[in-house]
Formats: sequence, C-alpha cells, structure tokens
Amino acid sequence: MKNSLLNRFVPKESKFFPLLNQLSQTVLNASELLIDSMNHDTPETWQEYYHKVKEAERKGDQITQQIFMELGQTFITPFDREDIHDLAFSIDDVTDRIHSASKRIAIYKPHAISDSGKELAVLIQQGASIICKAMDELETFSKNPSRLKDYCQKLHEIENHADEAYDLFIMQLFNEETDCIELIKTKEIMQELEKTTDAADHVGKLLRNIIVKYA
Amino acid sequence: MKNSLLNRFVPKESKFFPLLNQLSQTVLNASELLIDSMNHDTPETWQEYYHKVKEAERKGDQITQQIFMELGQTFITPFDREDIHDLAFSIDDVTDRIHSASKRIAIYKPHAISDSGKELAVLIQQGASIICKAMDELETFSKNPSRLKDYCQKLHEIENHADEAYDLFIMQLFNEETDCIELIKTKEIMQELEKTTDAADHVGKLLRNIIVKYA
Amino acid sequence: MKNSLLNRFVPKESKFFPLLNQLSQTVLNASELLIDSMNHDTPETWQEYYHKVKEAERKGDQITQQIFMELGQTFITPFDREDIHDLAFSIDDVTDRIHSASKRIAIYKPHAISDSGKELAVLIQQGASIICKAMDELETFSKNPSRLKDYCQKLHEIENHADEAYDLFIMQLFNEETDCIELIKTKEIMQELEKTTDAADHVGKLLRNIIVKYA
Repeated sequence: MKNSLLNRFVPKESKFFPLLNQLSQTVLNASELLIDSMNHDTPETWQEYYHKVKEAERKGDQITQQIFMELGQTFITPFDREDIHDLAFSIDDVTDRIHSASKRIAIYKPHAISDSGKELAVLIQQGASIICKAMDELETFSKNPSRLKDYCQKLHEIENHADEAYDLFIMQLFNEETDCIELIKTKEIMQELEKTTDAADHVGKLLRNIIVKYA
Repeated sequence: MKNSLLNRFVPKESKFFPLLNQLSQTVLNASELLIDSMNHDTPETWQEYYHKVKEAERKGDQITQQIFMELGQTFITPFDREDIHDLAFSIDDVTDRIHSASKRIAIYKPHAISDSGKELAVLIQQGASIICKAMDELETFSKNPSRLKDYCQKLHEIENHADEAYDLFIMQLFNEETDCIELIKTKEIMQELEKTTDAADHVGKLLRNIIVKYA
Repeated sequence: MKNSLLNRFVPKESKFFPLLNQLSQTVLNASELLIDSMNHDTPETWQEYYHKVKEAERKGDQITQQIFMELGQTFITPFDREDIHDLAFSIDDVTDRIHSASKRIAIYKPHAISDSGKELAVLIQQGASIICKAMDELETFSKNPSRLKDYCQKLHEIENHADEAYDLFIMQLFNEETDCIELIKTKEIMQELEKTTDAADHVGKLLRNIIVKYA
C-alpha cells in the first residue's frame, strides 16, 4: 500500500516544491489565456477561451488535490503541513478567480471589454508571473530571503494598483452607463478581475509569514 | 467540570459520527424544503418556506457549534481534529447556501421560478442525499473505501451538471430578459443555487483527502 | 536574529492580548467612521471617509500580519496557535467588510443613504464595541467566563436584528424602487453592511469555542 508505515516516515520534502511549481504555472497559463481572450471581441471566441481556462482550472484543482493527499500521507514536510496546505489553496484560488472572470465574459457577452478590464488582466498576469518566480525561490529562500520578500512586496503593489484602477472605472461606469443590463455585466466582470489581484496578494501574505517562520 | 483532565482523555470517537449524521440530515431537510417551495408560486408561501429553511439553518449551526466544542474538549478523535472541523464546517456551508437561496426567493419575489432553477434544486437535493449516505459510511469506510469514493465522484458529477445548466440558463437570460430588475432577481437566485452544488462538491473533496489519509 | 532559538522559548503570551486589543480598536474606529460618513450626503465627503476607512483597514492588516508573524515565531502562546490565528483573522474581517461597504458608498454614489442603512451602521458599531470589550476580557476570562459569554450572545442578537432589518428593507426596495441602477447601488451597499454583522457574529462563535476549550 502506498502509505505503508515505513513509506510514511521516509522524507518526501522534495516533492512539494515541484507540485507548487506546477500549480503556479497553471495560474500563469490561465492568466495568459485571459489576456488573449480580451484581444478578441466575439462571444464565440470568448466561449472558446473560457473552455481553455476551464481546463487550466481543472488541472489546478487536480494538482491541489494531489498536494493535499501527499500532505495527508507524509509525516515529514519541509514546512508545517498547514502552511503548505494554505499556500496551495491560495495559489489555486487565483486560478479559480481567473476562471470565474473568464466565465462571466463568456456567458454575459458584454458589448466590449473596457481598457480598464484589459489593464486588470495584465496586472493579473504580472502577479501570476511573480507567484511562479516565488515558487522557484521557495526551496532555497532561507539562504537569501530578500528576493522572496521583494516578490511579496510586488504582489501587494499590484493589488493596490488594481484597486485604484477598479475604483476609478466603477465610478465612471456609474456616471456614464445608462444601460442597466450592460452595467451589470461590466461591473461583475470587473469585480471578479479585481478580486483576482486580491487573491494573488493573499499568496504574498502567506509567503511573508513563511519567511518569518523559517528564514 | 465537564472537561476535567480525566474526562478529556477518555476516548469519545463515537460521538462525532452521530453528530455529523445529524448535520447531514439537516442539509437534506433544507434541500427538500427548497424543492417544495419551488412547487409554489406565491410570495407568501415562499416566505413560509424561507422561515422553515431558516430553522434548519439554525439547527445546522447548533450542531456544528456542538461539534466544534466537542473537538475543543476531546484529546482523542477518530480523525485529526482539523479534518472533522473542516468536514463539519463544509457540510454546514451547504445548508447556509440553501438558506441564502431560499431567502433570495422570499425577499426578491421573482415573477416565477425557472425550470433551470428547479433543476438545480433537484441536483442540490441529490447532493444532500449523497452527503447523508457518505456520513453513514464514514465510521467504517476503511474496510471498503470504494463506496465512499463513489459518493465523492457523484458529488463532483452533480456539480459539473449544475455548472452546465447554470451557464446555459444565464446565457439565455442575458439574451432574452429585458426587464433589468427581473434579471437581477433571477441571476442572483441562480448564482446562489449553483454555489450550493459547489459547496456539496467541496464536501466530496474533503472526504477524498480523508480516504487517502485514513484508508 | 529576532527568532533565535533561545528567544523562541521565552514565553511571550502577554503580547497577543495587546495586539488583539489594538485590532479590535481598529474595527471600532472604522465603524465610527462609517456612521459619521452616513451623516453626510455628498459624494465628496463619502470619498474622504472612504480614504479614512481605508487607512483603518490597512492598519488592521498590519496588526493582523504582526499577530501571524508572532505566532510563527512563538512556541508558547496563551491559547492554541490556530485559535489566535482564526480570532485575529475574523476580527480583521469585520474591518474589511466595513471598508468594502464604505468603498461602495464612495464609488457608487447612491442618491441617499436609507434609514435602514444607518440602522445597520449603528448595529455594526455596537458589535465593534462589544468585540473591544471581549478583547479586554480575554486574558482573564477563565476566572469568570459569564461576561465573555454575554458578549457572544449580544453579537448574535445584533446579527439577528440586522438580518431582519435587511430582509424588510430589501423587500421594500424591490417593491418600490423602479430605477434599476439605483436599486443595484442600494442593494449592494446593504448586502455588505449585513455581511459585516455576520462577520462580527462569527467572532462571537470563535470566542464561544475558546470559552469551552479553556474555561
């Protein structure tokens, strides 16, 4: 059996890092699909991209489940079990948010994607890229924690930037948009995009705690 | 005193299974009230059903609190403390979602409940029924984990099914509904119904981790 | 280094109580800003108050992060690590909700704040004030847990009261409001206010578990 007693005592640290790496690559992949989708303006293409993002979301789900299962079987992990659990969960949450934003675009079919929407998508992709770099750094960060700290700081700046862009856009939307149904579509898509940058910032907050705990 | 030192060391495993069982019965009860409510079309009846669902929600809350309190007092539990905690929390979350959907029906008073809404309610009831069966299985699952695995798989299939029904309906809604306020009502009720099947699928994911950890 | 081995074994219990105290003061501060903002009716003033609430929210974030970092470095804590973690997170969540409600007022610019909105803000402030008192009690509660229990009960009553006020208001809103965009603004502001009282009640639920565990 897989989780025989002996097997459970053998150190298995190394496997968590490749899995967290794969998970962050899934976020990056989803974020790139999101940007690509916004460079199109037909509902059919949005639908196609949504299906691709859905595949990424399911892959993220599988990797997260695998991490959780490994945690359940492993006695020795590089960090406390719950730190890896929360980190995996929060990284996967970024993909879930991207999936949800992409779904809203596909099924609401707005007249157009605003420039602010595209701006948020670029910020999301930048955040995803930083999460990937942070996962590259994680196994060896204690030798030089300053790089990982910088990544956390950048995730926070991205979130602040997205926050401001969102606030400004929504104020304009309520000032200018008179078509109520179009307003609903745009507002809900923008809300989900903004929450995605919150989710990426949350990954940074967890990483900050890990730095303090293990550096 | 209740949590005297001696008392805390006495094994109390057996009490968690009946409590989780009661909790799942509360979900099932709430889901059946939801279906029943949708077979009526007057705001007064929706209001009455909402109050009944609210009672179920409060009962679920009480049982969950009881489980959390028992976990706080008990040193020896059948599974890791946090696994029971998360499982109870996630089962109760299904009831909370049903409560929230029922509340929206009662206070928004839509013109009608769509067939897709009724379809989602049936899927929710099927999910609740599977959660009950899974809780029956939990105490002894390690002898034959395949049945519990099947239940997790079914919860996932239900969620996929609900997802597709939701997407299709919302697309039609935005294509056809021109009354903006009616669109808001219907969309928000459907969103909550769909999230309820997500919550039931989440129970399945936690159970999958438990299978790996303890089978 | 800060977390030298020796330093990590020195008991540091006492520092968590002042930090939780500061955190609850931040909630109270934000709730008072929220009430004040509602006594004005120009978008400019709402904007100013939103920026003040945002400062409170950031301060709450910093204190919470500090608590999490201390937990990561400390071997001996007054309660189980995860209980302090969850308590800090849930108290800060109340501030986050107030921030979110304040933001919606500032960027949606509704025609007016309803009396029900003001009523919910007062309930939120009452809840914040009770959370402060509960944090004053926490260090020594085991000598006389009944006072802390009363605070939990009051948080629950406030939530029930807010729930009823919300339901009634939303029913009236959908009956009377014909301007769809205004309906969206008001509904979303009220939803966030109501969720804030849920968040305060959640603090009470965690405190109840702590009472059972440590009294």
